[in-house]
Amino acid sequence: MRWSNTLIPTLREDPKDTEAMSHKLLLRGGYVRKLSSGVYSYLPLGLKVLKKICSIIAEEMFRAGADEVSLPALHPAELWKKTGRYEALGEDKLAFKNRTGQEFVLGPTHEEVITELVGAYVKSHRDLPKILFQIQTKFRDELRPRFGVIRTKEFIMKDAYSFDKDEAGLDESYQKMFEAYKKIFTRCGLPFRIVGADSGLMGGRVSQEFMVECEFGEDIMIQCAACGYLASRDIAERARGVLNPAPGSGKAPEAFDTPNLRTVDEITSRFKLKPEHLIKTLIYMGDGKPVACLIRGDRELNEAKLRKLCGFKTLIPAKPEDIQSITGGPIGFSGPVGLQGVRVVADFDIEGMTDSVTGANQKDTHLRNVNIGRDFKPDLIGDLRHAAHGDLCPKCGKPLAEAHALELGHVFKLGTRYTDAFEMKYLDEKGEKKTVIMGCYGIGVNRILAAHIEGHHDAKGMVWSKTIAPYSVLLVTLNQSDLQSVRIADEIYEKLSAEGIEVLYDDRNERAGVKFNDGDLIGIPLQVIVSERNLKEGKLEVCKRLNKETSKIPPEELLGWIRKTLSEIP
Amino acid sequence: MRWSNTLIPTLREDPKDTEAMSHKLLLRGGYVRKLSSGVYSYLPLGLKVLKKICSIIAEEMFRAGADEVSLPALHPAELWKKTGRYEALGEDKLAFKNRTGQEFVLGPTHEEVITELVGAYVKSHRDLPKILFQIQTKFRDELRPRFGVIRTKEFIMKDAYSFDKDEAGLDESYQKMFEAYKKIFTRCGLPFRIVGADSGLMGGRVSQEFMVECEFGEDIMIQCAACGYLASRDIAERARGVLNPAPGSGKAPEAFDTPNLRTVDEITSRFKLKPEHLIKTLIYMGDGKPVACLIRGDRELNEAKLRKLCGFKTLIPAKPEDIQSITGGPIGFSGPVGLQGVRVVADFDIEGMTDSVTGANQKDTHLRNVNIGRDFKPDLIGDLRHAAHGDLCPKCGKPLAEAHALELGHVFKLGTRYTDAFEMKYLDEKGEKKTVIMGCYGIGVNRILAAHIEGHHDAKGMVWSKTIAPYSVLLVTLNQSDLQSVRIADEIYEKLSAEGIEVLYDDRNERAGVKFNDGDLIGIPLQVIVSERNLKEGKLEVCKRLNKETSKIPPEELLGWIRKTLSEIP
Repeated sequence: MRWSNTLIPTLREDPKDTEAMSHKLLLRGGYVRKLSSGVYSYLPLGLKVLKKICSIIAEEMFRAGADEVSLPALHPAELWKKTGRYEALGEDKLAFKNRTGQEFVLGPTHEEVITELVGAYVKSHRDLPKILFQIQTKFRDELRPRFGVIRTKEFIMKDAYSFDKDEAGLDESYQKMFEAYKKIFTRCGLPFRIVGADSGLMGGRVSQEFMVECEFGEDIMIQCAACGYLASRDIAERARGVLNPAPGSGKAPEAFDTPNLRTVDEITSRFKLKPEHLIKTLIYMGDGKPVACLIRGDRELNEAKLRKLCGFKTLIPAKPEDIQSITGGPIGFSGPVGLQGVRVVADFDIEGMTDSVTGANQKDTHLRNVNIGRDFKPDLIGDLRHAAHGDLCPKCGKPLAEAHALELGHVFKLGTRYTDAFEMKYLDEKGEKKTVIMGCYGIGVNRILAAHIEGHHDAKGMVWSKTIAPYSVLLVTLNQSDLQSVRIADEIYEKLSAEGIEVLYDDRNERAGVKFNDGDLIGIPLQVIVSERNLKEGKLEVCKRLNKETSKIPPEELLGWIRKTLSEIP
Repeated sequence: MRWSNTLIPTLREDPKDTEAMSHKLLLRGGYVRKLSSGVYSYLPLGLKVLKKICSIIAEEMFRAGADEVSLPALHPAELWKKTGRYEALGEDKLAFKNRTGQEFVLGPTHEEVITELVGAYVKSHRDLPKILFQIQTKFRDELRPRFGVIRTKEFIMKDAYSFDKDEAGLDESYQKMFEAYKKIFTRCGLPFRIVGADSGLMGGRVSQEFMVECEFGEDIMIQCAACGYLASRDIAERARGVLNPAPGSGKAPEAFDTPNLRTVDEITSRFKLKPEHLIKTLIYMGDGKPVACLIRGDRELNEAKLRKLCGFKTLIPAKPEDIQSITGGPIGFSGPVGLQGVRVVADFDIEGMTDSVTGANQKDTHLRNVNIGRDFKPDLIGDLRHAAHGDLCPKCGKPLAEAHALELGHVFKLGTRYTDAFEMKYLDEKGEKKTVIMGCYGIGVNRILAAHIEGHHDAKGMVWSKTIAPYSVLLVTLNQSDLQSVRIADEIYEKLSAEGIEVLYDDRNERAGVKFNDGDLIGIPLQVIVSERNLKEGKLEVCKRLNKETSKIPPEELLGWIRKTLSEIP
């Protein structure tokens, strides 16, 4: 493609209001344009990268035995009501009624549509397993679009769905997708990490995320540098134990007046305390019985962990009147000391706290100098909050660290969450009706583009891996009014194109400096520069974008140099 | 692809409520599934055809010098208000407000978005010309979705937009797209026709449509079998003259009572007249002056033709009180006889009418036995209505015929309709600001799929052209429990796939009859049948779907036969 025929509107300055490097560079390099908050147009260079990514994804999906479909964006709202996700999506969904009063949801994902579809045809064990995928535009009413194409209202997803007879079949399909994902992200040049994750809105039991570390990722990974333990913060575990616990003063607990001071903030600011010196005591009803949860003042209870630790089926915060009757004091003044007839469950943190402040189970009163063991004894000690920097690794006990990460892909073992809702059954070998078991597997295509830039750029601009670069070669004339340069560059362009090499030909009548800067900015792996000076020596200048390593070669060696260098670079 | 791995839910019976053959066969062949009225899912076979069509389109667009972009579906409503098309789209648009109150239109086309986008970057004559295209999903609230994928609410369009310095540049860009379209439809195996058309909602001056004749097409083409004249009914012309005019009776005009009978229907049903014996007299104000238009009772005035014939800048129907003062009679009783001070313009039809009935310009009264020339003389005679079957060809005077047609593509010279609205200017060579000149060029991708089936099928099913067939070869085992058949078929499948030949392998454990019927139904060009009986002779059966011509060849000749036959068939 000739630069003069396409649209590559590079900018010299960093655009305003951009935080993420991918956002800056996509705008500066003329890869994308913002149409509206969280809504982007892809210009030719940006689209070419997306299409390369999509090709890699489709290839690996086919190789894993999946076939491709294309499902509509206009979903009848009834489908979403059937699974209860119409409500669950809440304001994240874009939904509307048309002229005849039919309500549509603009598809943010396609479990409902594909289950209805495949369910209409799959009737026998002989029709299973099936894996179907699509690469298609999704919509959600993202409240705070951020970081350019990382978090948007309209985005491209690869979504795949597996249908199996039983759990063993699901395991096999899941594994196929899992292996395909590893190949996809590897081929896209991304140093991905695989973390256990929470299934959230999707439902189902098992899920894993494919992440890349990224300053602007909105997910947090918890990792252990010592043993390699890695999990999404939502489900990361912690070991019992505290590093360097402070010695206690030995003073006895002492009540003090805290009129109307109920929250950690209110008490710490009034008494110049640090939140980590407070023990929060949260009263819940677990399976109908009261439970007091002790959490360090600067931490938040993770209800999922509490449920799991205690095996609760139902868990609700106790009402204020219940708190009064359970603890003897009003809400905001609960504490573990002297608590009777209540199961007390403490987070691991509590074991490391000395001389803490807690509620006194009495209006407008707290206690100071409270110590575990001496002043109260929990019935159960466990992991009740999200893991955080400095916690101990559940595998090896060494300190954990947090890292921001960007989710690129997510694989779920859904089970029968959707096939139950759509009554998707098949007849097994014995003629018995069984429910089909599902998995679903998503990849954010636009995020791969952004993540690659976040991980591969330098001060001059983007540095594309050859697998997803918009072009392999950038051909540049330094003086477009020099007839010999133009003739030779034209010949090179024709020849390389005929050899199937993807060439962007910068044939603009611009200053050499502008062309060099733009070339480095847009990050095409190989650069071939045609200048009057080098032509006098019978040479071309060739350059690898990655390290800016430059050399001079005669034109007849160009094709060989390109092929060799492309085989060597990442 | 193995049949057992994909989803091809063929049906034995024609589905209910289907009129068009493409609709029937797409459903029967398991190519598509209806999700909701006018909203279709594409199953693997259907999607493969769509993708082949998209590849051909993209290839020809690149060859014509266009580059590809991808613009969002979520359009801020303000963009559409800027060009006045928000109102013009009316209830055809799917529009909604999101949670923050921002209004979006789901893009039915992208003139607004691309003009805003390109306008932001193109500033100089050196940035022009540009042609950009995309292949992408569009949305419109089709009131009456019909004929399967022919008329839907969600569909794939290729839309291209050209930006030029001047009219000569536009002509060149338009011609490039025009030639590309001819190649695209030819490569897709469609016997297309190119017709002049009306620009409609798009605006602009010149437009042409690429049509295929099709029983279920909702457009009407007017064509002359003698000279080849062809145009869309919206703009088709007619020659002056009437075939076989009836002789008159010679009787003088005679008034008769028509109390409260104002319309053609009311008079013809009361007096047992045929509508073609009435002359309708429609009073308009053209550029502020009265004009009486005479149209045969069974025809409708085409205002665009009246404007053009008389060169009117403004044209509005006269108000009832104006009609009274212009004609002397109330609305519904106007006629040309005795009309004073009004320009009388007659359609060509009027010249062929004798002893007609017209209004008498007097309440509750009409005249019979009215004849042109004797009783009234029009100031102008011309073409004032849509052409129809039996009219005379404007080129050669022979009778015209109507044919139903399906619009596949439409090319427009838009001029400055959008660049004016977005103030898209460039600096010319002299440093003067000029407005950019636009063209736009659309292709309905799903309609190509449907049109191909409409034109290429037989009693057994679809017959794909090799260029857009979902696979080139269908490999079938007749007895999937015969180990030798399976082993040989597996080998063939591996070998052909390795040679880059696209093979669908029917490895189902189904009866031979089912497999033969399904194979013919889905219409893959070449069939290779592996049966025990033929294997005993060391042969495979090969068959061309087009004519069901069958032969037996040894396995080692298969690859050669496939390559040769693929090169010979359409």
